[in-house]
Amino acid sequence: MTVRFGLIGAGRMGATLARHLAYTVDDANLVAIADPNQQQLVEMQRLFDSVDTYSDYNKLLDRSDLDAVAIATPTNTHVEVVKAAAAAGKHIFTEKPLALTLERCDEAIAAVEASGVKLHVGFMRRFDPAYIAAKKKIDAGDIGNPVMFKSIGRDSWRPTVEFARRENSGGLMMDMGIHDFDLARWLMDSEVVRVYSEGGCLLYPELVEAGDIDNAVVNLKFANGAIGDIEISRSGIYGYDIRTEIVGTEGSLLIGKLQQTDLLFLQPNNISHDTIPGFMERFADAFAAEIADFVTAIEEDRETAVGAADARSATAIGVAATLSLEEERIVLISEIE
Amino acid sequence: MTVRFGLIGAGRMGATLARHLAYTVDDANLVAIADPNQQQLVEMQRLFDSVDTYSDYNKLLDRSDLDAVAIATPTNTHVEVVKAAAAAGKHIFTEKPLALTLERCDEAIAAVEASGVKLHVGFMRRFDPAYIAAKKKIDAGDIGNPVMFKSIGRDSWRPTVEFARRENSGGLMMDMGIHDFDLARWLMDSEVVRVYSEGGCLLYPELVEAGDIDNAVVNLKFANGAIGDIEISRSGIYGYDIRTEIVGTEGSLLIGKLQQTDLLFLQPNNISHDTIPGFMERFADAFAAEIADFVTAIEEDRETAVGAADARSATAIGVAATLSLEEERIVLISEIE
Amino acid sequence: MTVRFGLIGAGRMGATLARHLAYTVDDANLVAIADPNQQQLVEMQRLFDSVDTYSDYNKLLDRSDLDAVAIATPTNTHVEVVKAAAAAGKHIFTEKPLALTLERCDEAIAAVEASGVKLHVGFMRRFDPAYIAAKKKIDAGDIGNPVMFKSIGRDSWRPTVEFARRENSGGLMMDMGIHDFDLARWLMDSEVVRVYSEGGCLLYPELVEAGDIDNAVVNLKFANGAIGDIEISRSGIYGYDIRTEIVGTEGSLLIGKLQQTDLLFLQPNNISHDTIPGFMERFADAFAAEIADFVTAIEEDRETAVGAADARSATAIGVAATLSLEEERIVLISEIE
Amino acid sequence: MTVRFGLIGAGRMGATLARHLAYTVDDANLVAIADPNQQQLVEMQRLFDSVDTYSDYNKLLDRSDLDAVAIATPTNTHVEVVKAAAAAGKHIFTEKPLALTLERCDEAIAAVEASGVKLHVGFMRRFDPAYIAAKKKIDAGDIGNPVMFKSIGRDSWRPTVEFARRENSGGLMMDMGIHDFDLARWLMDSEVVRVYSEGGCLLYPELVEAGDIDNAVVNLKFANGAIGDIEISRSGIYGYDIRTEIVGTEGSLLIGKLQQTDLLFLQPNNISHDTIPGFMERFADAFAAEIADFVTAIEEDRETAVGAADARSATAIGVAATLSLEEERIVLISEIE
Repeated sequence: MTVRFGLIGAGRMGATLARHLAYTVDDANLVAIADPNQQQLVEMQRLFDSVDTYSDYNKLLDRSDLDAVAIATPTNTHVEVVKAAAAAGKHIFTEKPLALTLERCDEAIAAVEASGVKLHVGFMRRFDPAYIAAKKKIDAGDIGNPVMFKSIGRDSWRPTVEFARRENSGGLMMDMGIHDFDLARWLMDSEVVRVYSEGGCLLYPELVEAGDIDNAVVNLKFANGAIGDIEISRSGIYGYDIRTEIVGTEGSLLIGKLQQTDLLFLQPNNISHDTIPGFMERFADAFAAEIADFVTAIEEDRETAVGAADARSATAIGVAATLSLEEERIVLISEIE
Repeated sequence: MTVRFGLIGAGRMGATLARHLAYTVDDANLVAIADPNQQQLVEMQRLFDSVDTYSDYNKLLDRSDLDAVAIATPTNTHVEVVKAAAAAGKHIFTEKPLALTLERCDEAIAAVEASGVKLHVGFMRRFDPAYIAAKKKIDAGDIGNPVMFKSIGRDSWRPTVEFARRENSGGLMMDMGIHDFDLARWLMDSEVVRVYSEGGCLLYPELVEAGDIDNAVVNLKFANGAIGDIEISRSGIYGYDIRTEIVGTEGSLLIGKLQQTDLLFLQPNNISHDTIPGFMERFADAFAAEIADFVTAIEEDRETAVGAADARSATAIGVAATLSLEEERIVLISEIE
Repeated sequence: MTVRFGLIGAGRMGATLARHLAYTVDDANLVAIADPNQQQLVEMQRLFDSVDTYSDYNKLLDRSDLDAVAIATPTNTHVEVVKAAAAAGKHIFTEKPLALTLERCDEAIAAVEASGVKLHVGFMRRFDPAYIAAKKKIDAGDIGNPVMFKSIGRDSWRPTVEFARRENSGGLMMDMGIHDFDLARWLMDSEVVRVYSEGGCLLYPELVEAGDIDNAVVNLKFANGAIGDIEISRSGIYGYDIRTEIVGTEGSLLIGKLQQTDLLFLQPNNISHDTIPGFMERFADAFAAEIADFVTAIEEDRETAVGAADARSATAIGVAATLSLEEERIVLISEIE
Repeated sequence: MTVRFGLIGAGRMGATLARHLAYTVDDANLVAIADPNQQQLVEMQRLFDSVDTYSDYNKLLDRSDLDAVAIATPTNTHVEVVKAAAAAGKHIFTEKPLALTLERCDEAIAAVEASGVKLHVGFMRRFDPAYIAAKKKIDAGDIGNPVMFKSIGRDSWRPTVEFARRENSGGLMMDMGIHDFDLARWLMDSEVVRVYSEGGCLLYPELVEAGDIDNAVVNLKFANGAIGDIEISRSGIYGYDIRTEIVGTEGSLLIGKLQQTDLLFLQPNNISHDTIPGFMERFADAFAAEIADFVTAIEEDRETAVGAADARSATAIGVAATLSLEEERIVLISEIE
């Protein structure tokens, strides 16, 4: 079976999805691409000869020969596009986060449930070999009971002021932290029940204008009594740095990578190596594996690996962590509902 | 010049101090040892032939030929011994923490100031080569402005229930966290202004009886706007694990060590090494360097590297972090005063 | 421009080349595949829909619409296929080694030169990011003058007895060592002038029957006075292990990788990670980059990155190293000519 | 029991031995020191108050209250001092190598045997925790049969031209390589039967005058069929670098350390750490453990861990490796006898 895909949104992330749909994933076919930007469509056509292009994604959704769509539009348009795709009966792979509020999540989820299509939200870390191996070890009981979750997400760049605005990306907590919030729930197999955030605009004063911050730490309490802390920051001026630890009663797991090229340079009293440029390099294989899994879910007509409930719960933690920062207080996840 | 020392408290930590005073530190002489435990005194005399021993430390303090004392008695006796030593006009090197409350800190400090002796409190991490090198880089501006402090302190064992009681050791936050609280102030060169703690008894249910926990995370806000998080736990079931990160606007520093012996064992699909057994191994050199620095401070009649104000401030954060946990709320350091 | 490729040989390596030609390399098209094994052809057609298949590679060469061929047939057929491809006017990308003797190399090279086609021999390590970065640093003078070359090549499996026979694969020295011999010349920018080998069949006694060994060390002397040592072995029972060092008068470079998945597992007094399964995983990116470079050489009508002279010189060292082992003596490369 | 020591030779190595004898090793007492250099004796007396000093080591040997001597004189005087000490009935701890030729080794050994004193030769690597752990694993069968021995010894400095002369230090092979030759025999539990060396003066042309080289590689064949290679060089311009690998049929061991301080410095696209300054830092603990073991051998009246036969065999390989380099030929160890 071949799943015929339309791609909506042909920016940087969209181009990555396009390549995987066209080449890497055996049972996927990239048939059409929609983007309002004409120049990006031309570039896409150069890369993928046989693909049809549209400036209006509704035109793409009108095609009856498409099984599924991959959505890589700006964050604040996800809900609108998801609803349209659901209405058109297409299975949906969308970039994270599904929405910036629970109300908007629920709108999208209602549309998906009404039409009966499948929904996969792009938490690609779950498809990274190191995270997969960690999850397997936890599930096998290799570390006993997980009691602490720790995560560092340090981006190596700052977004534009426009992107940083709460109404566009959701701000640092939502845009970056959403990955860690998802990991926390998934790896600990328990829900986060309360959070407390500290943060500030410590590197890039220009983000103050956008109402955003560039550094935050979030303390977590889980339903099962476990605890954790998450750092979300733009402070990776040396490189992209994603690390996660799960501490258990019988062992511990440490996921992370600080070196891109397997070369050490030895100079007088100094041994050095390079760093990871960004998420594209760090999670290259994960993006491909994630789409492949979505395709398999369609083929086997099973639930997607990361569905509506996961997307909603991660957003809830993001909303709570943001609120905690704003109001300088502990926030219960139950408040957000 | 040779500084003549009396040691008060000949337990595990005391034995380490004794060896350094007797052998490692050039200008120190170990002259006398006091401990209520007769067996330990016998052992000390076996190791250090020419040393005089006392079961009552006041007898030791009566000697006019001693310049200084090193105190390694149980935590909850530090203040009493410090006061007696100050009254006897001896310079004082005491294990951490100075006291479990600010009131008791102030009592000890007042005694020290009244007598004019020097006081050094044993935050040995400041004398570890890695921490020294990190501090130098920060002071040299190599990482720009420090914006985030992160620390992990994982002990590889649990204390006895007796030791764990709040009135004896101060509990997890005070007993272990005190080192991280001191590092935070020292490395960030800014005071902590508020904390929030999450924690629980997740590994060793037997500690519940003592009212103690075995895992905690503490969020920090500094006076200069910087933030941080600290983990304090007994979860190092694999080994002793102390890591600290200082993230700056132009670079970052990562202190830590996960391997004791420089040997890799390569088996089918598995490469492994050992871990650090405990603080004695990890900070062996630091303990020696710390005493040597105290001796130099006496010789040069200068301030000690870690004095009364540092001891008091670390205790204040410990009290606040403990209170935060108990009352499940954000605590300002200013409340503790 | 698109370079239209025929693939000759559809085994494990051939399948990798096929995928890269079909998908990874933008300007390459996989048009036809030849292999005597019908089952492999069926599999290839399943993976690459539009490809034509042939059981006789001469039929493939007859096609006038192919620009180039990629050869992944058994080692001892390389020369014959190269000659046929050259006669057919196709540019040639062939797996290593070009031939097992200099005479056979010369035959192949003469055919290539007579027809004027391009020849690229598959020393993919030159296209690995770590080796590329090392070469750049050497060329930039970052390590001063290279004075020592060291290489370890440990395979994680043993070949079949049939494959191990000298007449088929050339034996350990030629089959595996050829990569290190090529690296030695390339990275040191000087020719090897003499070799001395020690070796034995130490792990897999079954290889004795094939006249092969499974462990060897080769000492090198370079024309410019530099020295080196190479280990070639099947002893990587823990995993595939390729390491190279270039020691210079002002610095040193260390290439290598012992971990596949970025996960540490921490258990009591034991921290472990996995290993690299094999060359397919270690050099996945390098294989793709190598073909892309060959395609660019055709497009730009420039010399290939690894041509006839390089292939011939590596074979010469392989012959010398094998002879040294057989006759238990130092062998000059000049003897081989 | 306390073993009363005289130290002969108070240079850099002698000072280290002195400190260990005086302080680190519980059952050793440093009683007397001999050195022709008056200034060094003064310095020694400053460090070790109660020690007696002699400019003539024979005077020291005349003392009847000494049980043992530690010899840290120049290499080419070892035999003479050993003979005198043996004649005086003192147990002998001597720095490596025992002698630069087998004839001279035999002279020393004969004297030792005639007098019945114990002899320990300073191959301190055998007392390094990593080497000890490796040896234990090998002996326990954890890596199956060892089939390959690999060693890198890179010094971070060059000796004086005077020291480098063959008649003084024995030259690079003997002075540095002797440690690796000893490790080879010890860890592989098999004798080296032939060697082939390549080498040159590639970094420090000033050593040519001394007839010495600064870089060498030595191929090894063992009696049991195992093979190996050793690098001996002064090329560690980045730092002191000692690595050893033992490859077995069921696993492999890798000993080594490239970092002194447990601190990573993270800058844009660059993560770096420091290196090991020299053997004093790398083997600090090993030197102490080695003397302690010698003291225990005396106390328990058992054989020393590294005795006459070991010293002689390492010298034999050193002589063979040097001869191989000079005559550009394979040398059998049996030739040296």
